[in-house]
Amino acid sequence: MTEQISVAGEQYEREQKLKLKLSKIKHKIAVISGKGGVGKSTITANLAMAFAMQGHENKVGVLDADIHGPCIPKMLGLKGQTLIGGPGGLLFPVVGKLGIKVVSMDFLLPNDEAPVIWRGPLKMRAIQQFLTDMMWGELDYLFIDLPPGTGDEPLSVMQLIPDLDGAVIVTMPSEVSQAVVKKAVSFAKQMGVPIIGIVENMSGFVCPDCGAKVNIFRAGGGKKMAESLSVPYLGSIPIDPNICNDSDNGLPFIAENKTSPATEAFKEIVKKIEQFSENTETARFKEIKK
Amino acid sequence: MTEQISVAGEQYEREQKLKLKLSKIKHKIAVISGKGGVGKSTITANLAMAFAMQGHENKVGVLDADIHGPCIPKMLGLKGQTLIGGPGGLLFPVVGKLGIKVVSMDFLLPNDEAPVIWRGPLKMRAIQQFLTDMMWGELDYLFIDLPPGTGDEPLSVMQLIPDLDGAVIVTMPSEVSQAVVKKAVSFAKQMGVPIIGIVENMSGFVCPDCGAKVNIFRAGGGKKMAESLSVPYLGSIPIDPNICNDSDNGLPFIAENKTSPATEAFKEIVKKIEQFSENTETARFKEIKK
Repeated sequence: MTEQISVAGEQYEREQKLKLKLSKIKHKIAVISGKGGVGKSTITANLAMAFAMQGHENKVGVLDADIHGPCIPKMLGLKGQTLIGGPGGLLFPVVGKLGIKVVSMDFLLPNDEAPVIWRGPLKMRAIQQFLTDMMWGELDYLFIDLPPGTGDEPLSVMQLIPDLDGAVIVTMPSEVSQAVVKKAVSFAKQMGVPIIGIVENMSGFVCPDCGAKVNIFRAGGGKKMAESLSVPYLGSIPIDPNICNDSDNGLPFIAENKTSPATEAFKEIVKKIEQFSENTETARFKEIKK
Repeated sequence: MTEQISVAGEQYEREQKLKLKLSKIKHKIAVISGKGGVGKSTITANLAMAFAMQGHENKVGVLDADIHGPCIPKMLGLKGQTLIGGPGGLLFPVVGKLGIKVVSMDFLLPNDEAPVIWRGPLKMRAIQQFLTDMMWGELDYLFIDLPPGTGDEPLSVMQLIPDLDGAVIVTMPSEVSQAVVKKAVSFAKQMGVPIIGIVENMSGFVCPDCGAKVNIFRAGGGKKMAESLSVPYLGSIPIDPNICNDSDNGLPFIAENKTSPATEAFKEIVKKIEQFSENTETARFKEIKK
């Protein structure tokens, strides 16, 4: 009996700690896709960079919730860093350029080859600790990069963070990937998470030699899909070999290629997400005043 | 106590049923990647088609173990089909071109939008049923398409099928995706699954207008990685817009584009996998004779 009370007590304490942590983060935005390899992590890393560049320096965080395949540290040039312990068993996120705070499973692994062979319950616990036992401090924006699928990790994040601003859904133009991404839209709707909108990544390719436009993965499907599902369409990002090179070198492309079509497209998307978050803030403020 | 015995009895019975099913399938090959979106399902669908075309008609099966994002039915032109019940509660796989037998979560969903919001234990159970309660019949080859990561689904498949021939590991040339694929190699090694080799997908792009070669996702990393990890390198498949179009139309590209560089590259890979499986068979035969 005493043991039962202490377990319940511990859980209550953990929930209160989580609530307190989250209350210091103004906006929480999940980036989801349903299908892997559509560039979710690239979009997340560049979103963080864009917001840090536009008036939120030292106030942006990224939670890499992909336990099996964490890519955010590499994309933000933070490979090889580790989480450092602070007072009371808390950990400090790794701090990157423009004060972006990053937490990722990658910071806890001995090397690149080490796989994390975990079933669901352990992953849920890890994500909870990444939120609760971490010195996030006061943030304007926390971006959460979720692994593909609608299983343990996305479920955990959505249950642990009940006040998510919403989800950005990333897709590729191919029909195969869109079929899967539709599931992500239904998933967010069923979980009661607002959908900020759909981003179509790798949309068309311009040959750098001759300028011919080739739709390697087809193009335009993202917009059609957004219309048919009645969710906002945020924009399309063309294929650009620099994006891959920059990601490999740990440089978000929007910081490196200030005038490329991909950067221009991305900036438009950032504006729409910012607008959405500001509206969320206004709505919350009105709610409190009532 | 009686209840305990009946649970243990049920489990024993299930294990025996699974063993019997698997004994009728000569070769079981898992296709894994660690990272999503590297073309695992495309490779799996085309492998199945290649083996069916080369002397194994009606003797090839595909188990789509991606519960959240099943793509195999679309790629093999089987969208909209369902699993049909047989005697004793067993189910029949959907049969495609050249008698390829396919089992996928997709055949059980009401539509494309329906997400499968399941945590790990349920997924394990589903995969078990896909193997045990299915009329696979006698097969020469069963290809298992696994979702990205090293979590519940791959773990389940490797524990349920102890006599896997081995794993084909698919990667993309970018460093970011290779870092994650290394984890898949370690995972297979730790689970005691032989590694058939590494396939590098989306390796370089030839502009159809001017013939310029552009390495959108870089190229050549797969071979280097295979060497550094001391595992066989099976080959590289170039980017070809036809592959995406064919996949969207449910036509495996090796059946549709008989002379393209991608098809040529793929055929070489098929040869190596066949050789590996034949060696496995010889080794097993010797083992039995001892």
